[in-house]
Amino acid sequence: MFISFEGTEGVGKTTLIRKLFDHFQQQGKDVVLSREPGGTPLAEQIRSLLLSVNHDEQMSNDTELLLMYAARAQHLQNVILPALAEGKIVLCDRFVDSSFAYQCAGRGLSRDKLQLLNENFVVRMPDITFWLDAPIELGMTRARERGALDRFEQEKLVFFESVRSGFAEIHMRDSQRMKRLDATQTPEQVFADAIDYLK
Amino acid sequence: MFISFEGTEGVGKTTLIRKLFDHFQQQGKDVVLSREPGGTPLAEQIRSLLLSVNHDEQMSNDTELLLMYAARAQHLQNVILPALAEGKIVLCDRFVDSSFAYQCAGRGLSRDKLQLLNENFVVRMPDITFWLDAPIELGMTRARERGALDRFEQEKLVFFESVRSGFAEIHMRDSQRMKRLDATQTPEQVFADAIDYLK
Repeated sequence: MFISFEGTEGVGKTTLIRKLFDHFQQQGKDVVLSREPGGTPLAEQIRSLLLSVNHDEQMSNDTELLLMYAARAQHLQNVILPALAEGKIVLCDRFVDSSFAYQCAGRGLSRDKLQLLNENFVVRMPDITFWLDAPIELGMTRARERGALDRFEQEKLVFFESVRSGFAEIHMRDSQRMKRLDATQTPEQVFADAIDYLK
Repeated sequence: MFISFEGTEGVGKTTLIRKLFDHFQQQGKDVVLSREPGGTPLAEQIRSLLLSVNHDEQMSNDTELLLMYAARAQHLQNVILPALAEGKIVLCDRFVDSSFAYQCAGRGLSRDKLQLLNENFVVRMPDITFWLDAPIELGMTRARERGALDRFEQEKLVFFESVRSGFAEIHMRDSQRMKRLDATQTPEQVFADAIDYLK
C-alpha cells in the first residue's frame, strides 16, 4: 500500500505520518517512511536545490517543475517501487498532488505540462492520499514557530490560498483516492479520522 | 544568432567554439559563450549532479533526462533568451541534440518522452548547429588525455557508437539546421568549414 500526505505548510503532516508509522509497526507491518522532493541521496540533493533561497538567480517555473519530476523519478525507481514490490507500506510526505497545487494552482504553470509529466514519468500513483486541510493562517503560524522559512514557505499568503484551492480541486475531482482530513482538530482526532478511512 | 555545437567526446568542440568566439569578437560583435548542461549558477549545480560519478546510487534514465531539461529551461530563460533579445550571438557547447543522441540513441530512452519535453520546454531552437563528427576511438583518446573521465565519458565504446549514430540521424532529418563538420581534419580546417557554412 502506497499512502501520500498532502497539505499546505504547518498542517501537521509529519505528526500524522509518525502516528501512522507507529500504528503499522505495532501491527507488525513493514513500513517505509519517505518524502518529496527527496527520498534518495540524489533526490535529496535535488531537494536542496529546490528549497534553498538564492537571491542572485531566479528559478524559472519550468526549471522548478522539471527538478521536482527528476527527484520524483529517482524516488519512484529507487525507493517506492522496490518497497511496494517487497510488500511494504510506503508513507510519503507529499507526492504528485503537491506539484499540481504548488506549481499549477499556486504559480499558474500550465496544467497541460504537468499532465504530460504525470502521464509519462509517474509510473505509480498512491492508493490513498490524505489531504490535511486547515486555514492558511493557522499553518503558517506553526511553520514560523519551527524556525527559518525555506523558499516555498517565504511565499505570500495569497499564494498559499491558491495552493489550498488546488488541493480542494483535486479532492473534488478524485475523492476516491484523496481523503480530506480536518487539520484544525487535535492530532489524535486527525489520526483517528485517517484510521477510519483506512478501514 | 544562436549556434550550438554537438558531437561525441574529444571531437574538438571547445577549440572550434574558441576560434569562432575570437572571430566574432574581431568583427566587433557581442558574443556569449555557454554550455549545456549548465550555463547559469543553478544549471551548473544541476550539471555537477549529472556528471558526478556515484557508485552508491544508480541514476534512473528518467531522472537524467528531467535533470537535463531542468538545467536547459533555466539556461534558456536566464541566459540564451535575454542574450538573443539584446542582439548578441550565442555559442552553446551542446544543446537539445545531445539529449537525443545520448539519452535516446545512447541509452534507449523513449523518443516520445524526449519529443514532448522538446515541444513543451524548449522555447527556442538553435539557428545553426555544428556537428563535429569523428570516429569514436579518436575522440576517446583525446578525452582520456584530458584527465579523469566523468560519468558520461566512462561509458563503453558501443554506447558512443550509438550516440554518434544518433547525431547522424538528426543530421539526416534536419540537414537544414545541422551541418556536419569532419572533425578528423586540423582545427584550422574545421574552423574554415564552419565559416563557410556561416556565409
